[in-house]
Amino acid sequence: MGMTITEKILAFHAGKEYVEPGEIVKCRVDVLLANDITAPLAIKEFERLKVPLFEPNALVLVPDHFTPNKDIKSAEQAKTVREFARRHRIPHYFEVGRMGIEHCLLPEQGLVVAGDVVIGADSHTCTYGALGAFATGVGSTDLAAAMALGETWFRVPPSLKFVYTGKLKPWVGGKDLILYTIGQIGVEGALYCAMEFTGPVIEELSMDGRFTMCNMAVEAGAKNGIIAPDEKTAAYLEGRARRPYKFFQSDPDARYQAVYEFDVSRLEPQVALPHSPANTRPVTEVTHITIDQVVIGSCTNGRLEDLRVAAQVLKGKKVHPYVRLIVIPGTQEIYRQALREGLIEIFLEAGGAVSTPTCGPCLGGHMGVLAKGERAVATTNRNFVGRMGHPESEVYLASPAVAAASAVLGRLAHPDEVVKA
Amino acid sequence: MGMTITEKILAFHAGKEYVEPGEIVKCRVDVLLANDITAPLAIKEFERLKVPLFEPNALVLVPDHFTPNKDIKSAEQAKTVREFARRHRIPHYFEVGRMGIEHCLLPEQGLVVAGDVVIGADSHTCTYGALGAFATGVGSTDLAAAMALGETWFRVPPSLKFVYTGKLKPWVGGKDLILYTIGQIGVEGALYCAMEFTGPVIEELSMDGRFTMCNMAVEAGAKNGIIAPDEKTAAYLEGRARRPYKFFQSDPDARYQAVYEFDVSRLEPQVALPHSPANTRPVTEVTHITIDQVVIGSCTNGRLEDLRVAAQVLKGKKVHPYVRLIVIPGTQEIYRQALREGLIEIFLEAGGAVSTPTCGPCLGGHMGVLAKGERAVATTNRNFVGRMGHPESEVYLASPAVAAASAVLGRLAHPDEVVKA
Repeated sequence: MGMTITEKILAFHAGKEYVEPGEIVKCRVDVLLANDITAPLAIKEFERLKVPLFEPNALVLVPDHFTPNKDIKSAEQAKTVREFARRHRIPHYFEVGRMGIEHCLLPEQGLVVAGDVVIGADSHTCTYGALGAFATGVGSTDLAAAMALGETWFRVPPSLKFVYTGKLKPWVGGKDLILYTIGQIGVEGALYCAMEFTGPVIEELSMDGRFTMCNMAVEAGAKNGIIAPDEKTAAYLEGRARRPYKFFQSDPDARYQAVYEFDVSRLEPQVALPHSPANTRPVTEVTHITIDQVVIGSCTNGRLEDLRVAAQVLKGKKVHPYVRLIVIPGTQEIYRQALREGLIEIFLEAGGAVSTPTCGPCLGGHMGVLAKGERAVATTNRNFVGRMGHPESEVYLASPAVAAASAVLGRLAHPDEVVKA
Repeated sequence: MGMTITEKILAFHAGKEYVEPGEIVKCRVDVLLANDITAPLAIKEFERLKVPLFEPNALVLVPDHFTPNKDIKSAEQAKTVREFARRHRIPHYFEVGRMGIEHCLLPEQGLVVAGDVVIGADSHTCTYGALGAFATGVGSTDLAAAMALGETWFRVPPSLKFVYTGKLKPWVGGKDLILYTIGQIGVEGALYCAMEFTGPVIEELSMDGRFTMCNMAVEAGAKNGIIAPDEKTAAYLEGRARRPYKFFQSDPDARYQAVYEFDVSRLEPQVALPHSPANTRPVTEVTHITIDQVVIGSCTNGRLEDLRVAAQVLKGKKVHPYVRLIVIPGTQEIYRQALREGLIEIFLEAGGAVSTPTCGPCLGGHMGVLAKGERAVATTNRNFVGRMGHPESEVYLASPAVAAASAVLGRLAHPDEVVKA
């Protein structure tokens, strides 16, 4: 019997010909990731082991969550990471001003490549599946062990195949596809499974759209999200990849626990209402809901294409007087490129606040925390109770296009209400 | 006997021909200011009075300290201000994305003009003296009373005259002059006095440099700082001023409690070492001190000229690997102008983090709080113990030129060490 792309990558890293779902495998790990929240704990556990780092080059440390630091406690945590990086001469430590949101930064910097096994002490590590890599979130202590050993164990996940057919309407993209999918299968619909996104719509989808989809696989409970690498992947990796890479593909006779086929030709821009990413509706059904804040950014939708779409909607428009628009480019490089393309000026002209890269508001960390009763439209990934601030605040997940249109109209809005695509 | 400019403005607003130091006067107030920290308390006290606002046009509300909000508490405070502004139809409420640091914003927006009496529930309200206005910080309850009455009382301050002669060296500006002055007279050297800055050096000084000087008058304990309006003031007000203005000048026979004359031809760029703004040295004496963070911004030095000077030093350079550079334009308009002039690109290219306008790090609020043992060079106004974070952190106050040079070299540095003026 054939293997899926996920199984093949795990088999390769386990030094085995064949693996099957449910099997426990010990895998070589190519990249280990931690941030300013998770690295301090991993470092503490690692240092108890009193062993050297297996491979300093493989460890990536990105203080992105509460930076530039929001308080003394977060400053102390960032300091722990910084001092560890200096002590161990970690080449891939990224400082404030030279960094970005981890899951935007690592692919951009060519630190993750196709065929990799990546573990990160952050649940959205699954983002890198868009490169044809196996990438998953782990706890800080698991990371600490892998920092010492260069390997970790996995239970091989069963794979779910998602086939998207048809042709997307204007303004509909990766965020709408993944919100719709989670809406269909629920937040436990892919529990400990690999979500393999396939079909002509995925082939057409940009790399940035693919990152968005794989990023949110974990919101359906998945172990990983993955997309078979193709010429778009190759083009993306060209000139970026810092290591050789390997394209894996699922076999035609690979086994899937389930196959979902979605014709998405009629799919409207989606919104996930509070308090679940699975609570999705077409935006046209909820345009009566007024809002207080819009956040465009995050590891889900803080990439250049996202900013381009938002700017397309916001160009020449003004943010509604009752709305705060916060735009956070995913990385310093995205910020620079957006500046060169005139996107930053569009956001500023519209009355948006443009900040340096940080996860900040997504997790109610800083730079846009909500008060009681406030509602935000956000291009982020989670809308759980209190995610962005007060327990009685609300988060509506949407694409950058919907978020930008909503910023202009002061309520949930279809982009067509503001500008024609 | 003649009157000083400060006395004349107070007399005019008290409807009197003549006032003298020590006299209690009741003055009409042209502008009342509060921010997200101080407005909620003023609002609470005002609402207890159950009277209408004396003049909604005179009240300026700027949520600039902990915005975009750093936590739920600050979000609740900003919400209090926002809801008050909507309820009372305050035209000069400035929202995130359309605002700036209050003391940069009000002059820029023409909300303060020459001859005004301004009270603000913020100690650096004295900034507006640079426009030839009487401006001073008050408590939130005093502000609440003036919100109801349109007037407040003052004890007329005695005036100190500071005469600056000579010609400034390259890289030496308003920040160096005021740091030097505070170093000479001490943090109580102007206690409850008006600091009147005069002389050929002040006449030559740009408006931005004058704002910096008046801004820090309070660091010498002054009631207000003030500079006689001239053609530079007129040019600044031209096209901005939202109300008619009046130029007051000190009489030749005005009385001064003291006159200080400083020949500043040999003045070097100054640094105020921890933990007092009066603990000043020429930067050349302290270039051995290594640093962790640089902040360029604040109501003291977040204006366009400040960013231009910083960019002049940083152009084509890289921030030292061990330093975080945080650049915060003072207002949205300054951000846009800096963007158009290519300054923002220079900061990003250098490896600086550029944030949306906020007071943030200056008061250890957010966006750059220091950990234990860390040292920052900051263009801000206070370096008291724990001002920017941990009680064992240190702040070195300096000009944007010195701050930028220090960011490149990773230690306190004279700008000449990085680039020739």
